[in-house]
Amino acid sequence: MARPRLAGAELEARLRELPGWSLEGGKLHREFRFADFVEAMGFMLRAALVAERMNHHPEWSNVWNRVVVDLTTHDAGGVTASDVELARHLAGLAGDPRPVSGPS
Amino acid sequence: MARPRLAGAELEARLRELPGWSLEGGKLHREFRFADFVEAMGFMLRAALVAERMNHHPEWSNVWNRVVVDLTTHDAGGVTASDVELARHLAGLAGDPRPVSGPS
Amino acid sequence: MARPRLAGAELEARLRELPGWSLEGGKLHREFRFADFVEAMGFMLRAALVAERMNHHPEWSNVWNRVVVDLTTHDAGGVTASDVELARHLAGLAGDPRPVSGPS
Amino acid sequence: MARPRLAGAELEARLRELPGWSLEGGKLHREFRFADFVEAMGFMLRAALVAERMNHHPEWSNVWNRVVVDLTTHDAGGVTASDVELARHLAGLAGDPRPVSGPS
Repeated sequence: MARPRLAGAELEARLRELPGWSLEGGKLHREFRFADFVEAMGFMLRAALVAERMNHHPEWSNVWNRVVVDLTTHDAGGVTASDVELARHLAGLAGDPRPVSGPS
Repeated sequence: MARPRLAGAELEARLRELPGWSLEGGKLHREFRFADFVEAMGFMLRAALVAERMNHHPEWSNVWNRVVVDLTTHDAGGVTASDVELARHLAGLAGDPRPVSGPS
Repeated sequence: MARPRLAGAELEARLRELPGWSLEGGKLHREFRFADFVEAMGFMLRAALVAERMNHHPEWSNVWNRVVVDLTTHDAGGVTASDVELARHLAGLAGDPRPVSGPS
Repeated sequence: MARPRLAGAELEARLRELPGWSLEGGKLHREFRFADFVEAMGFMLRAALVAERMNHHPEWSNVWNRVVVDLTTHDAGGVTASDVELARHLAGLAGDPRPVSGPS
């Protein structure tokens, strides 16, 4: 069963913990740029492994070194804690520094 | 150096050899559907290996079991023989039967 | 916690349900051959997604179109139901026909 | 056609440029360790893309976070410049610092 949809102040608070991500069309959105196609694919495979483990999958596109990601939970009709968790994982895979505190 | 842009009767003839592909926005376009996310990723990663070998890369997106592909050659401003070749490879990877005759 | 180690008649019964697999050095063993390196990698990457989802990973090697797989459960000191389940998944990914009956 | 086999002082000079690699059984050998299975697979996919582009493929094995690589050129009966080139690429993908000077 999907987790409840995040909204209002709670969603805003979560977004502040996700530098680089924005809310577009009701989805968590981010564009990643890599050195080249090989690095972009390396990111996508590692992200796919995490997504399959979570059973929560991204909407995403790739053109050479760019990967654009949109995260939403269809069953909940919006952004949920699963999207926030996947967003945090993807940021880590792409090389963002881990936050000093807060949930891992 | 990019191969020349295909147009007119030549492009139409090539399209007839590529069942499932259409011309959308000046690009070779096709949507593939797979059994699940694992099979969709299996397709994308094999396609990535072929694309990297050809040094000719797709524009593509994925949502769970669907992969939408658009092929164009930016340096040529349209569809070239490289796009046709990549389209044929992708069809083969996705399980289309190989043509009985014609260029491999 | 690891599932219990299979042995004796129970292990033999499971092996009979896994055509192509043998017991070597106390591990479920099989060699897969594919058309080429691209197909071998496509198999490994799809298998990796399944393995990560199961949190149960293979010991495996690759040389061009060949992939050799050994499955064991270190915490149990031998072959467990998790290895049997992963073996069945890998066979399916490699194109073995699904069994008509029996556990999926 | 395969490049000529490297031997003697030439091979030793090349090995000195490849920290972490050794000669074992007439092959360039190295064990890589990563944070986890996801990172190991990310390395293998990126390495596979480079290998397919070079049309020069590794002999390698994986157990969870470890990837053991052996490089040789079968047609030449030993280590060639292609193996050295692939070894350098793999080191770069695994995060080794690039050499300040010398061939890229």
